[in-house]
Amino acid sequence: MSFQFWFEFASTYSYPAAMRIESLAVSQRIDIEWNAFLLGPVFKAQGWNDSPFNIYLAKGRYMWRDMERICDALSIPFRRPSVFPRNGLLATRIATRFKSSMWIPNFVRAIYRANFADDLDIGDSAVVANCLAQLGVDSDEVIATANSDESKSLLRSQNDIAAQLNIFGAPSFLANGELFWGNDRLEQAFQWLTTGEKLA
Amino acid sequence: MSFQFWFEFASTYSYPAAMRIESLAVSQRIDIEWNAFLLGPVFKAQGWNDSPFNIYLAKGRYMWRDMERICDALSIPFRRPSVFPRNGLLATRIATRFKSSMWIPNFVRAIYRANFADDLDIGDSAVVANCLAQLGVDSDEVIATANSDESKSLLRSQNDIAAQLNIFGAPSFLANGELFWGNDRLEQAFQWLTTGEKLA
Repeated sequence: MSFQFWFEFASTYSYPAAMRIESLAVSQRIDIEWNAFLLGPVFKAQGWNDSPFNIYLAKGRYMWRDMERICDALSIPFRRPSVFPRNGLLATRIATRFKSSMWIPNFVRAIYRANFADDLDIGDSAVVANCLAQLGVDSDEVIATANSDESKSLLRSQNDIAAQLNIFGAPSFLANGELFWGNDRLEQAFQWLTTGEKLA
Repeated sequence: MSFQFWFEFASTYSYPAAMRIESLAVSQRIDIEWNAFLLGPVFKAQGWNDSPFNIYLAKGRYMWRDMERICDALSIPFRRPSVFPRNGLLATRIATRFKSSMWIPNFVRAIYRANFADDLDIGDSAVVANCLAQLGVDSDEVIATANSDESKSLLRSQNDIAAQLNIFGAPSFLANGELFWGNDRLEQAFQWLTTGEKLA
């Protein structure tokens, strides 16, 4: 049984997914593999140089309103970031390099809160360092390791895997290899682990 | 209290929405306004000359698989159409011109079944005529009326209204003026009619 969570730190709908996935998974005794990746290269391959929510205005306007409704229903704080999309490169390198560390889920949530609740620049290494420090992690060491050539190369490979898995947006979930896209499909993706044989 | 259902006959996700909306609405005593429209002009305004599911391959591949899962879960027959997207112009003119007729919900479902369950060419007036005849409607008269200049102009106005409402995809729902997009938001849209004051 395998469950992968693919998320991008600038992705709006990844935020509620990241905030709620762990408590849902624990209640169902599901282990999650946390996979940060970058949507930029995915979008570039589709001919977009910006978030489609910025390119397609009506869709973007709808998304911001939808985010308000979703976060309100989940009682998650939400403030529309003054800059969108924000640069999540450093945070993504950290999440990729330290994927199996105990503190990763808390780090991921701290970065999302910084971006979507506190309107902080998650591209600023001081903001990232602060998120790490809150968790009692040695931020200098982690950031230096995340900026090494090895870590950069690891993230490129991670993004190649996302492309090979046909991931085209975030959040995405892979439940025993079956792809689900969107925060609103999280429950179905979990359900797939027990009922998926029907269509497989 | 007003509830509008905006759908496009070629739209895959509009199919399950159209098949299930009436029974859900009846159980909640909600009156639905059925609004057919054309996505073509909406997509053209965004720079697309084809369905985004054809333009963006990974997204399209995911959508077809997702449709299988959704229709399976709802026990709705589904066969991937051999031509996509199909030309729903005549059916849309009929649905727009005869919007308030008693037979419209059945007609809408018959067209969707033809497209997504029976793989028939809904752009063929014989197929449309057959859908009408099944309902005991005079197909010759309805089709002639739908092809009049008045009906063509009515559909253009209908599409203008969709654009003014910031509708960018199908299915869309307007619950007391609040926009929801996607088959998976139908329940939330209905709920908005009773709880919507919270965020309004």
